[in-house]
Amino acid sequence: MGKLVDEFNTYRAKMNDKILGSDNKVMKRLYGLDTLTYQEGALSSKVKEMLGLATSMVLRCDDCVKYHLEKCFEQGVTTDEMFEILSVANVVGGTICIPHTRRAVEYWEELNNSSKL
Amino acid sequence: MGKLVDEFNTYRAKMNDKILGSDNKVMKRLYGLDTLTYQEGALSSKVKEMLGLATSMVLRCDDCVKYHLEKCFEQGVTTDEMFEILSVANVVGGTICIPHTRRAVEYWEELNNSSKL
Amino acid sequence: MGKLVDEFNTYRAKMNDKILGSDNKVMKRLYGLDTLTYQEGALSSKVKEMLGLATSMVLRCDDCVKYHLEKCFEQGVTTDEMFEILSVANVVGGTICIPHTRRAVEYWEELNNSSKL
Amino acid sequence: MGKLVDEFNTYRAKMNDKILGSDNKVMKRLYGLDTLTYQEGALSSKVKEMLGLATSMVLRCDDCVKYHLEKCFEQGVTTDEMFEILSVANVVGGTICIPHTRRAVEYWEELNNSSKL
Amino acid sequence: MGKLVDEFNTYRAKMNDKILGSDNKVMKRLYGLDTLTYQEGALSSKVKEMLGLATSMVLRCDDCVKYHLEKCFEQGVTTDEMFEILSVANVVGGTICIPHTRRAVEYWEELNNSSKL
Amino acid sequence: MGKLVDEFNTYRAKMNDKILGSDNKVMKRLYGLDTLTYQEGALSSKVKEMLGLATSMVLRCDDCVKYHLEKCFEQGVTTDEMFEILSVANVVGGTICIPHTRRAVEYWEELNNSSKL
Repeated sequence: MGKLVDEFNTYRAKMNDKILGSDNKVMKRLYGLDTLTYQEGALSSKVKEMLGLATSMVLRCDDCVKYHLEKCFEQGVTTDEMFEILSVANVVGGTICIPHTRRAVEYWEELNNSSKL
Repeated sequence: MGKLVDEFNTYRAKMNDKILGSDNKVMKRLYGLDTLTYQEGALSSKVKEMLGLATSMVLRCDDCVKYHLEKCFEQGVTTDEMFEILSVANVVGGTICIPHTRRAVEYWEELNNSSKL
Repeated sequence: MGKLVDEFNTYRAKMNDKILGSDNKVMKRLYGLDTLTYQEGALSSKVKEMLGLATSMVLRCDDCVKYHLEKCFEQGVTTDEMFEILSVANVVGGTICIPHTRRAVEYWEELNNSSKL
Repeated sequence: MGKLVDEFNTYRAKMNDKILGSDNKVMKRLYGLDTLTYQEGALSSKVKEMLGLATSMVLRCDDCVKYHLEKCFEQGVTTDEMFEILSVANVVGGTICIPHTRRAVEYWEELNNSSKL
Repeated sequence: MGKLVDEFNTYRAKMNDKILGSDNKVMKRLYGLDTLTYQEGALSSKVKEMLGLATSMVLRCDDCVKYHLEKCFEQGVTTDEMFEILSVANVVGGTICIPHTRRAVEYWEELNNSSKL
Repeated sequence: MGKLVDEFNTYRAKMNDKILGSDNKVMKRLYGLDTLTYQEGALSSKVKEMLGLATSMVLRCDDCVKYHLEKCFEQGVTTDEMFEILSVANVVGGTICIPHTRRAVEYWEELNNSSKL
């Protein structure tokens, strides 16, 4: 894996452990609900991850974007599809999304390069 | 068509005419870009309209939600799929989306009832 | 109950029934999680409802504000306390919150008047 | 004055009185600060009201947009200038701003028609 | 103090001096208003800081979260209470708040470790 | 140029090339529309860049703020004017904008220092 991907996942795993290690039932259930949300249903997990990516982009949450980029990548989303998801988000959410798009494209590139090794 | 759908579309058409009737080139191009965004590409128009619906919901724009609900309806999105789109949005965007979900479900119901006449 | 309060609660109950009447497990669990969130814990329900009100205000969701105003009212929050919650929200969230504050104060007044009958 | 303008201003004045009539010092000072913000300075009040309009639009607060449309109108902002302010906001904030732009254009039209009587 | 806490406070103090050192009266008064907002009143400073933390979290401002975490810590908020504040915010604001929650928990941990030295 | 300015512009240019190098027509047109938006019209480019800065600030996009700070600087916006733009944004958008204001002031200072070399 590349540096950006590694750092993100290491930090994410470490801090998720602390959150889930606390006694807070609401946070635990929210994590469980999050997992349930993206499972196969009337819509495929692939489409749901696309929805997760697009909504994360318009809400401009870089870490959420990274997370859903990885999930989209695992689901076989192509680079052209990824750009179309981001383009919907950029039109809906405006040029304010462009800096987040730059970081998304960098992360996507690293995901793709890593998988070729 | 039902009352909510009628009122929304009449007002929308009337005011869009005024905006496009102004001399503002940026607004005209933005409307053009909006149309281009949802055309068939690497992703189908159907998936893109789903993305439009989910992003409108997390940004909590009722009129945008109505617009994309109509487009999703025209694209053959089922009620189960519609609820899954809204459920992703509600988990990503939080309970703050629930009041908008109530209005979305009401509008969706009217779209479905109208089509049965 | 006053007119604003009645209309809000009637519509809310009707549409919540439709959402919970659907087969969508994620929405059902989100509603359950929402209930769990405000229960007595390390913090009292009263404080949690205050947090619910303040966060709804900065996110500028009128219906969420109405809901938490009712809950705060039931928990015995006073008018002075209510104004202090809104004042924190207005300073954190800016003057963009003022129109929502106007509607909140109107709703709060109706809640108080109703209870005196 | 037209109907939209009248209703907005009547409600606004009535509720502002209640907010300022409360004992909440923070809200009072915030109202004072709001007045101070748009006074002549290094920038003219006209430019500041334009900034108020554009920021209200990207934050998608219809009542704030109405308020600043009136102030811009009083400051002599022309219809072409008004459309350019909104076009910057729509590009920065995305198509999610379009429904708010429709309502802004309707309000602006009423402000202009009223002034011709 | 730990590294995160130190860096945040040093940068914050340095830049606040520059902002207050400018001739801008509006910014100065906003800083004054901010101080006033969290003082003892109908609600305790402790509750107000909790409101500050929750609103900062749903608006997803990491630096604001850090600031209010420190204030909450000084006011004697416990770790269980802190998690409940964050859990309300995560349910209201959605999973988009989770990355900010991770950073909040890390900062909170550092505040607690520092105080034990 | 200073370090912050250099890093921002280098990364921005590199990633914009990748975005424009993709086959995505929507993104390309959005970039074109962005350029068109700030050209001389009924309003000067200077005023439009001020609008770009204020809207970027209330939407709390640090990179967008940096970009418009540079454009404002090139258009001859003075430090007093810059602070007034930020003060409107801080009052409209609330104290949640203060951390972004700190970073904006740091970037503005670097722009000014660089130009004196």
